[in-house]
Formats: sequence, C-alpha cells, structure tokens
Amino acid sequence: MSPEWGVMSAIGIFDSGVGGFTVLKALRAALPDESFIYLGDTARLPYGSKSPDTIRHYLKQNIEFLLAFPVKAVIVACNSASTVVDGDHWQGIPLYDVIQPGALAAVKASKQKKVGILGTRATVASQAYVKAIHEIDAQIECVQQSCPLLVPLVEEGWENDPMSRMIMTRYLTAPINQGVDTLILGCTHYPVLKPIIQELVGPDIALIDSADVLVDNLKRDLADGRVTTDLGAGTIEVWTTDSGSHFHEIGQRIMGSWPLDSWQHADIR
Amino acid sequence: MSPEWGVMSAIGIFDSGVGGFTVLKALRAALPDESFIYLGDTARLPYGSKSPDTIRHYLKQNIEFLLAFPVKAVIVACNSASTVVDGDHWQGIPLYDVIQPGALAAVKASKQKKVGILGTRATVASQAYVKAIHEIDAQIECVQQSCPLLVPLVEEGWENDPMSRMIMTRYLTAPINQGVDTLILGCTHYPVLKPIIQELVGPDIALIDSADVLVDNLKRDLADGRVTTDLGAGTIEVWTTDSGSHFHEIGQRIMGSWPLDSWQHADIR
Repeated sequence: MSPEWGVMSAIGIFDSGVGGFTVLKALRAALPDESFIYLGDTARLPYGSKSPDTIRHYLKQNIEFLLAFPVKAVIVACNSASTVVDGDHWQGIPLYDVIQPGALAAVKASKQKKVGILGTRATVASQAYVKAIHEIDAQIECVQQSCPLLVPLVEEGWENDPMSRMIMTRYLTAPINQGVDTLILGCTHYPVLKPIIQELVGPDIALIDSADVLVDNLKRDLADGRVTTDLGAGTIEVWTTDSGSHFHEIGQRIMGSWPLDSWQHADIR
Repeated sequence: MSPEWGVMSAIGIFDSGVGGFTVLKALRAALPDESFIYLGDTARLPYGSKSPDTIRHYLKQNIEFLLAFPVKAVIVACNSASTVVDGDHWQGIPLYDVIQPGALAAVKASKQKKVGILGTRATVASQAYVKAIHEIDAQIECVQQSCPLLVPLVEEGWENDPMSRMIMTRYLTAPINQGVDTLILGCTHYPVLKPIIQELVGPDIALIDSADVLVDNLKRDLADGRVTTDLGAGTIEVWTTDSGSHFHEIGQRIMGSWPLDSWQHADIR
C-alpha cells in the first residue's frame, strides 16, 4: 500500500464504523495541515454489543492495518475499542484512546462530583470510564446508562426526530434523577446528538465529548515532540472493511463540507 | 469437534445472531425428534447493514463450520444471508434459505396482488424478495420498506413499548398507504413483533413468516427422502462466534421454556 501513499507521516485513526468521523472532524479542524488515515471496520460493526475478547481481536487487526502505513500516531476513536486498550504505545507508536481524556474532562467539569456516562453495552459493562474516573478521584459518584438505540437512530438519520427525543429522554432519566452535573458522551456517534441532549438536560449539565480533550492532548504531544511534527499534505484517506454507499452518506453528513480525498476497501476479515 | 457430538445426523441452522431462534423454534415445534446445531454469528452481526460481498464471505464460513458436523441439511435462517444464497445444495447437502418460501407464501396469500416486504437495508437493496416473487408471478406489485430500527428494538427488549409501536407505525405507513394485502416479515427478528404488527395493520392484511413455509418444505423433504430421516436425539446445540450473556438472554426469551442443551464458542473470524 505504501507506494500509493505519498505522505511520509500521517495520523492513523480507527473506529468500528463511521461514528469516529466526529473525532476525525475535530482533529481536522484543529490540525489542518496534518494528514489522516481513517479506518472504519464497517464489515464487523458495531463493537458495542460484543465481548472484550472479540473487540480485542479487532483492535489488534485494525492497529496492524494502520501500522502498515507510515503513521506517527494511532487514535482509537471507538469508545468500545478504547475499553480494551492497554498502554499508550503500540510497537513504539503513540496510541491514544478516548476513555482517558473523557474521564479527565468529566472530573474537571463536575462540581457536584456526580458524573453520568452514556455508552454502548460493551462500554458500560467494561466499567472503563468508572475505573478511569476513580483513578483520578475516587470520591466521584458515577451513573452509567447504556443506550443501544442511539447508534441505529443516528445511522437512520433520525437524530432530529421527535421519536429520537423520546428515546433519549428515557435514557437520560436515570442519570438526571440521580443528580449528575456532568454527562460523558461515551460513544463516537453521540456528539451528533449533542445539541438535542443539551436541550433535553438543560444548560446546567456539562456534556463531555472526548474528542475535544483528545485534540488538546495531541496538540500538546506534537508541540513537545512525543509525536513528530513533520506535516503531511492535509489529506484524509478513508478505508472501510465493507463497501456500501450508506456509510459514505453518514460519513459525509458528519464531515459536512470537508472533502474525503479517497475511500478504499480494507481487506480485514 | 465430531468426537464430542454423539448425534449422527443433525439439522444445521445459522443466523447472523439470535434472531434465527424464531426459525429454530418453529422447526423444533414441528420436528421434536430432530437434533439441531444452531450457529449465531454474533461477533459480526448484524448482516443487514452490510454489502453482498461481505455477507457472501460470512455465509461461506458459516456453512463450512456447520459442515464440520454430521449435518444432513443446512438452513440459512437469516434473510440478509439468504439474499446471497445461490442454489439449493452445498457440497451435496440440501440448503434452505428463507427468501424462496416467504415469496411463495406471499404470492399465495395476496388476492390483490400487492405484497409488502419489511426487511433490513441489505435485504431490501438486494431486491431478493421482489425477484423471487416475480419469478412466480410477474404481475404482483411489491412495496419494500427497510426497517433498520426493528432489530435493535427487539434486542433492547422493547417490543411491547409504546415507542416501538410509533416506530413500527412509521415503517408500516408506506406499505399500508399503497394498499398491500400481504406483508412479508423479511427478517428473523420480526416474528417477535408479529402480534403488534398484526394489531397495527388490522386483521385483513396477511403476515408472512418464512419459518412456517420452511417447516413445511423440510417436512416434505424428510418424507420424500431428499433429507434423510435418521433421527437425532432431539437436542439443540448452540454455537456463537462471540460470547456475552446478552445473547443468551434474548435467545432464551425467544425460545421460551425450550432448553438449549449447550452453548459454546465457535472460533470463526
């Protein structure tokens, strides 16, 4: 694959599907000169209903796929995959997950020390956010809520539908009733729903999108040399393990007017 | 695997997940002395959002997994997988899909020659039901509706929820407005929703569950010797490609009081 790839040093990023485009979009906005290689494991999505063993196997394959390119950092944009990340390097390459930055931001934001976590079944079952939060501050009370219907709603394009509001209201009831003042959007699809969730929970509850903190961390590491700063051509190359125009549509909807320079098939099975 | 398996001749059946238990349940009720080996590809579900190439690859792997057992027939319970089935044999073993029997039953049931098809994105995009129906009667008008949220609703256990009725009402609007008198439940999860769908569409619309016709076909083929009638021990052995108790719960909910004799991990990736 390398001969086709003219850029010497890109940032690799993967997600189970196209939800990770919310992370890519934030990175692209903050680092316009960097090049990105995005891998969406659309043939095997979603990860959120699957077991740690299976997710770990997919994580390894996805990282190895990205390492075949000249990448200088790998970002695990998927929350469910982030729950099985162990360490901050992979074969010498800096590795970023979305759990740690989300947990840190939530701890900083929560004045009442009550944090709600919205996530997939896998993310909630892993207790990854709870553990990460308690490593920073053991006094914080965590209220977890798995929201299995939110990803299909976003993929159906119904995010502004009254029906989606009803479903979100139901998922938000327990965290709200338990008095959280901070809510982690613990799945890459959820930032798409951020304006509606903010409207439903009101202005006094802080919503945490890991992508924001991740961007800050990456900027810091580019500045201090942990990640090399030789800039790429500012391109975005997308690889997906399945074909299908539906993913293009959702991906492009998330990215807005940003051009995706190529869209190719990754033969990972 | 064979040494662990005492039965000489079982019926193999697979689905992308546990929705195919609706088919297994119908088969088990009609053929109580037969043994069944059920494979759920839970590590890679759902198939309904994926491309024909990817589904074809999974189909092949799943059938080959089942053929490692002494099976005398293989049933593709998944509608999305059935859309890529080519032929009625695999290495000399009779192969059954759910599209053909569903199409035949719909043609028989429709007096107005207007048939609605509810299915996943993959099933609708494949036009498999439309083609199968038109091969029998080219005059029949088909109205397809993809229903991506129904599977997650069933898996969330919300099938009797008012919210689910609203979502189903929306999906049913186009077929009803176009005057169908017959509606194919073109996904193995949908029979779980059958009573609610019947209530929503009223008694004059016939609902087609492929499993019923499939059972009749298999009984016929057992009677005429196409499928050998040496009976098994009446056991049900379940294999899934992912672990996770959530699938047990849904599976057991569909099967009701029927015992599943074993539940093991199938290493297909």
